Parts: sequence; C-alpha cells; structure tokens
Amino acid sequence: FQVAPHQASRASSALFAEYEPIEGEGKINLKIDLDIPKVATMDEIEKGKKVYCRCWLSGTFPLCDGTHQKHNEATGDNVGPLIVSVKKD
Amino acid sequence: FQVAPHQASRASSALFAEYEPIEGEGKINLKIDLDIPKVATMDEIEKGKKVYCRCWLSGTFPLCDGTHQKHNEATGDNVGPLIVSVKKD
Repeated sequence: FQVAPHQASRASSALFAEYEPIEGEGKINLKIDLDIPKVATMDEIEKGKKVYCRCWLSGTFPLCDGTHQKHNEATGDNVGPLIVSVKKD
Repeated sequence: FQVAPHQASRASSALFAEYEPIEGEGKINLKIDLDIPKVATMDEIEKGKKVYCRCWLSGTFPLCDGTHQKHNEATGDNVGPLIVSVKKD
C-alpha cells in the first residue's frame, strides 16, 4: 500500500491551519504603493501622539487624513484610525 | 432670474471636494467589532516597538499576528503592518 503523492501532500498540509478567507474578502489596498509586494511601515514616535491610517485611502498615508469617514459612508464599512501615544514615565 | 433649489444645492456642494470611491472599493473590515459604527483604536507605547494590524483580520487586533500574509496570498493584496517604535532622546 502506497500513499499517492497528492494524498501525502494533503495529509501534510492538514497539520497546519488552513487559511479560510472570509466571505467577500478581497484586496483592501487599492491605492498605496501598489508596485511593491507588501506595504509594511516603520515609524517612530518621540512624544505626544500620532494618528495612523488603517483604511488604505489616506492622502497622507501612513498617517490618517480622515478619508475613512467618507469611505465608511460610501461603503457601509466601520473602519477608523489607530492613535498611538507615548506613555509618560 | 432665480436659481432653482436643487441647482443652488449642487453649486454649494461643489465647493467641497466630492468623494469618488476607487473602482472596486468596498468594506475592508469583515471581522472586527462589526457592531460599532467606527473602530478607532487608542494605544500607548512606553518603550521598544509594537506591530499593529492594518489588514483587519488579525486574531490579536489591534496588534498584528501575521494574517496579512495569508490574506495577501489569497487575494493578491499587498498589505502589511505598521511598526511603531519609541524614539530615544
């Protein structure tokens, strides 16, 4: 008895959690740096706070410019920014 | 000569930039706090760095758990996290 190659492969991949896309899941970035494989952003904060875009539509990306509000109104979405502040000692 | 009400309204709204959704723009949050109108997140960082989710799929939202990579593979998207570090004096 031999396991066919495609069965062995299936059994092997079952050891890992398969990714199940959510219904309706598609591209969420239609604007920012579309020519690169992945838009990861490094940023520094020294004091106070910064407001970061999570809608991928800001004209000041990676910072928020409020466009999420228009996006939410147009699509029924509920996204908003990330506000990071430096904790005082 | 009188401006009809709908014309006056149109002229007035033209003073503001109309929002033009991008082709294919739709909901980007299919998972996080869908019962609230807007998911804005406040977070503090004291030292070092934090890695924040921008794909709206992380199991550790608002922090990144790497799910963007599977999302990118499944959809052809190119999103990635935001990494914020505290700048040393």
